[in-house]
Amino acid sequence: MDNKSDPSTLETYGQVVLTWISRYLREVEGRPIRSDVAPGTILEQLPPRAPEKPESYEEIIGDLDRIIAPGLTHWHSPGWFAYFPSNTSVPSILADLAAAGMGQQGMLWATSPACTELEMVMLNWLVELLDLPRDWRTDGTGGGVIQTTASDATHLALVVARQKARVRTSIEKMVVYASNQAHSSIEKGARIAGYEHIRLIDVDETFAMCSRALRTAIMADKASGLLPVFVNATVGSTGTAALDPLLEIGKIASEYKMWFHVDAAYAGTAMMCPEYRRYQEGVEYADSYVFNPHKWMGVGFDCSCFYVKDRKPLIDTLGIVPSYLRSDANRAETVVDYRDWQVALGRRFRALKIWFVLRAHGAEALRAMVRRHVSLARAFGDWVDGHPCLVRIAPVSLALVSFRHVDGNNATQLLVDTINASEHSFVTPATLKGEAYIRVSIGQMGTQAEHVERLKSLIDGSLYSRNHSG
Amino acid sequence: MDNKSDPSTLETYGQVVLTWISRYLREVEGRPIRSDVAPGTILEQLPPRAPEKPESYEEIIGDLDRIIAPGLTHWHSPGWFAYFPSNTSVPSILADLAAAGMGQQGMLWATSPACTELEMVMLNWLVELLDLPRDWRTDGTGGGVIQTTASDATHLALVVARQKARVRTSIEKMVVYASNQAHSSIEKGARIAGYEHIRLIDVDETFAMCSRALRTAIMADKASGLLPVFVNATVGSTGTAALDPLLEIGKIASEYKMWFHVDAAYAGTAMMCPEYRRYQEGVEYADSYVFNPHKWMGVGFDCSCFYVKDRKPLIDTLGIVPSYLRSDANRAETVVDYRDWQVALGRRFRALKIWFVLRAHGAEALRAMVRRHVSLARAFGDWVDGHPCLVRIAPVSLALVSFRHVDGNNATQLLVDTINASEHSFVTPATLKGEAYIRVSIGQMGTQAEHVERLKSLIDGSLYSRNHSG
Repeated sequence: MDNKSDPSTLETYGQVVLTWISRYLREVEGRPIRSDVAPGTILEQLPPRAPEKPESYEEIIGDLDRIIAPGLTHWHSPGWFAYFPSNTSVPSILADLAAAGMGQQGMLWATSPACTELEMVMLNWLVELLDLPRDWRTDGTGGGVIQTTASDATHLALVVARQKARVRTSIEKMVVYASNQAHSSIEKGARIAGYEHIRLIDVDETFAMCSRALRTAIMADKASGLLPVFVNATVGSTGTAALDPLLEIGKIASEYKMWFHVDAAYAGTAMMCPEYRRYQEGVEYADSYVFNPHKWMGVGFDCSCFYVKDRKPLIDTLGIVPSYLRSDANRAETVVDYRDWQVALGRRFRALKIWFVLRAHGAEALRAMVRRHVSLARAFGDWVDGHPCLVRIAPVSLALVSFRHVDGNNATQLLVDTINASEHSFVTPATLKGEAYIRVSIGQMGTQAEHVERLKSLIDGSLYSRNHSG
Repeated sequence: MDNKSDPSTLETYGQVVLTWISRYLREVEGRPIRSDVAPGTILEQLPPRAPEKPESYEEIIGDLDRIIAPGLTHWHSPGWFAYFPSNTSVPSILADLAAAGMGQQGMLWATSPACTELEMVMLNWLVELLDLPRDWRTDGTGGGVIQTTASDATHLALVVARQKARVRTSIEKMVVYASNQAHSSIEKGARIAGYEHIRLIDVDETFAMCSRALRTAIMADKASGLLPVFVNATVGSTGTAALDPLLEIGKIASEYKMWFHVDAAYAGTAMMCPEYRRYQEGVEYADSYVFNPHKWMGVGFDCSCFYVKDRKPLIDTLGIVPSYLRSDANRAETVVDYRDWQVALGRRFRALKIWFVLRAHGAEALRAMVRRHVSLARAFGDWVDGHPCLVRIAPVSLALVSFRHVDGNNATQLLVDTINASEHSFVTPATLKGEAYIRVSIGQMGTQAEHVERLKSLIDGSLYSRNHSG
């Protein structure tokens, strides 16, 4: 290739990109959170074909400002209260850069021992940090592996459960259970895995799964000749961060010999703090568990940690080497080939991001961040409770506050529109039982009390002006 | 957080990491390709728990040399002739850095218009560059999407085919076909998607699928009441870069109303050059197609491009919004929500890597690289043909040469061991019909004539010394 691939070019233009990111991160708070481009705006600025001749890095990197920046939605703004957080942080960016440069391919231990072993250790670190069952460690009967997203992890759990159940019945008779507040990835993953029966179980007044309703549904299905195979419990649902009762669900799963999957994609990070671990009481019943460091831990997307209690059915399902060869070689005892723990063959060196983030920040600072967000959310929830025009629709759970306008859907939607039109604060509207509400999720690393105060003033201002113009 | 997250920290330590990568890339040629660490070496150097207090970046980045580097397998060495290439290049590293810094979440058009629209355009650019059917463009009936790996793409194709066929029969009766040289991801993907019948079809003397054998197998399955649903054809098999006859297979697939998937993971990049396009004659019959820019195009892992002729069944299978809402909103006509094109929900800004690579190098230089590799492989194949101790076991196909020692398996394995013990050249041994052979895959961006010459001398030296010591 030409000099575009000279390593010294990397240093020169890498510095330009670093400066660009650094400026972006410093200025992100001042930018309108939501991109206001119309569909097709970016598309129209790009030529119809790839260039034949090389272009200069000045031109290419310059287009980040000219073409790309206007089309960015600023997930890292401290006024980001939408969805769940999708944090990244400086050590994660540094690690991702190092990973891109090394270009490792961690499909087998042998194709990158460092990639494989660092992942084993990081997943063990996280077992300790989140106080997960010790037998989920790679040196136990189970183990952890980095997947792209929680959806991928949940899909895998569904596939392994299906394969285990196949000796008992055909897929047409298998049933999957989750609460009606579970993430769409459960239904989607079940459909992709080929299940035909998915039961969305009723929830209680906190939007947590009602375990009695689960048992009733299981019994009804069994009575009609179906086989209950898989139950998902969520720690921190997308709608309201509801907390399903793991212990009760786990016992039912165990009683009916079902696969028990725990989706802690959002809440997992909070388990660093001992005071929230009561939310995962019963997690030792889980056959599989997923949480996303790329949400709330400062590890950039993509990084989703998937654990299994017993790695054997996982590898039996996903391994491409016949089992008699594996046991013969006895290698499984000394090395892990993560190829057999995922749908994909190749894999990126993603453990590096976890390593850099945990070391650069240290566990204490990450815990402090979670506690700050939770405490901001609780204070915001109190403020909502004291507000004559607002009403909470669910308990404040971790760092999520769910509320609506007392006047109903139109007034709530108007409030959402006003907040999002502010350009400095951004929330996601949602609906529960036909009722519109607002999710305020506090979780960006840069979010401080002042940003929540600004949101409160914005809401107050909107309500005041409406009262006075109406 | 502490000052570890200050953007200026990113500039300071980003430069340190850039220098580290730059040194790594300059020195990679001199390093022993295969890591010689024993299992557990990296693991043992790491503490059992995450640190409570922050560590300095000097310490953390320093550990790249102290702990990580000895455990790296150097895929980017110009003496890398193993597997298929897994290239990255300077513009890809720069783009990945920018993507990590922006931290976009491209699940919906609205959550990052730039991420979505750049991906649409890049996938269209690649349609033009590889001369793929025009209706695979996003402005046609089909469209392209970046998946993590070809395994993921193939799994998706299998799932969509299964869902389409479900109105006709149950999964227990569906059959998947691929040649016995197809990549393990076909069988693995089929198993994950829940298929029970997978037929591995015989190949001809070039290891390409025998289309008559395919037709015979299909007819036999139909006669016994099964439903042929999916056929995979490979352009550039893993074993010998064999080229399945797409036109013949495509016509059979069309005749039996089967889903026709083309796995061009390796060879796709070569289609930039018009002279190789005869290898994909009949590609217009394909319902889906996958190729990996992260193999031979200089785009760092992960970046696998997946195309479908018709996006409707894909979105019907993977969409989480009910179809009546989708058509109602009519948004599908103006924007793409890539969430509905993959198993995962979240997605990284990976199109940026393709954009930077195609622009920084330009198509001409990438074509020249492919041609250089192919020409080096042909010359190496000629040399093998003229060598009294060596015999090719398959035609030289693209940039892969497959050969063995005339004396059989032991002599071949001895040759592999000698090559790999050299530390500067690295090959993958393989087996076909019980016969051991050596794959020499020429495809690293840095590989030049001198590196192939060195490999030849190494082989000659090994054979000479053996003849004289035996």
